[in-house]
Parts: sequence; C-alpha cells; structure tokens
Amino acid sequence: MDISDWRKKIDEIDRGLVHLLNERARCAVEIGRIKRQNGLPIQEPNREQEVFRQALAANQGPLPDEAIRRVLERIVEEGKALQRSVFERKSD
Amino acid sequence: MDISDWRKKIDEIDRGLVHLLNERARCAVEIGRIKRQNGLPIQEPNREQEVFRQALAANQGPLPDEAIRRVLERIVEEGKALQRSVFERKSD
Repeated sequence: MDISDWRKKIDEIDRGLVHLLNERARCAVEIGRIKRQNGLPIQEPNREQEVFRQALAANQGPLPDEAIRRVLERIVEEGKALQRSVFERKSD
Repeated sequence: MDISDWRKKIDEIDRGLVHLLNERARCAVEIGRIKRQNGLPIQEPNREQEVFRQALAANQGPLPDEAIRRVLERIVEEGKALQRSVFERKSD
C-alpha cells in the first residue's frame, strides 16, 4: 500500500469516527434528558471513571492508555457541552 | 430505554471508538514509515486540512463541526506522538 492508499483508509476511519462520535453524543443527550426529568444530578464522577475504565480495558494498542484517555476526555467534554446547549435552548 | 441501557450503548460505542482510534494510529505509523524510507517531509499541513475537511463533510450532527474538529485535532496529535515514539525507539 502506498501513502495515498493509507490516506484513503484514514479518511474512511475518520468517517466512522464521526459517525460514532455523533451516536455517542445522542446517547449522552438522552441520558441528560432522563436525568433532568427525574431530578437526578447531571454530573457523576464515578460514572466518568467507569467510562474510562471500560474503554481502556478494550485498548489493545498501538496507542498507549494515556493517549486513549486524553481523546476520551475531549469526547466526554464535547458531550457535556452539547448537553448544555441542548437543554439551555429548551429553557429559553 | 433507561439510563443503564444508554450507558451500555455508550460503552459499546466507546469500544468501537478505541478500535478505530488504534486502526487510525496504525495507518499513521505506516505513512510515517513510508515517508521516512523515501525522505519525504513528515508534517504536511495541507494534508491535515484535508483530513478535517473530509471528516467535517461527513458530519451530520448533533455534534457541531467545531466539536468534531477539536476531537480530531486531539486524535491527530496522538497519532503524531505515536509516530515520534515508534521512530525514536527504532533509532536507539
């Protein structure tokens, strides 16, 4: 495979990543909705630790755990930001 | 679906993300290897812009483009860090 083949593969993977990121964001919004409807706390640090634990348990490399963790932290932050924007719009 | 169902779905998505992140990292290392073998420049800003363009073109939300871009920037950075660590080890 030459560089352009590997790049095509990366572009395909990126489309898959974008798809999964949006699917994950939709789940986060649904959870936020249920929590709000039931007066449950929005932030749950224990659950966040569990998210990292689960993901890292699935890591077979070559990315080191710290790299996966940093990417996932970014993803979790974007999910929270989306939740805020969805629910703030609703309460306007 | 209740909260625990949505969480199971998130954990499943996260395992998919970890898998794709590692697959992407392997591609980045292969590209780095070909570039080194052929004396090509490792960093290519134009290609990075193309990566973002391709990924954002696939974005159907709910995450805004800026969110996808921030996650992807983190992913690209981790790919570069992995490349450095792979090729530094080799030149020891």
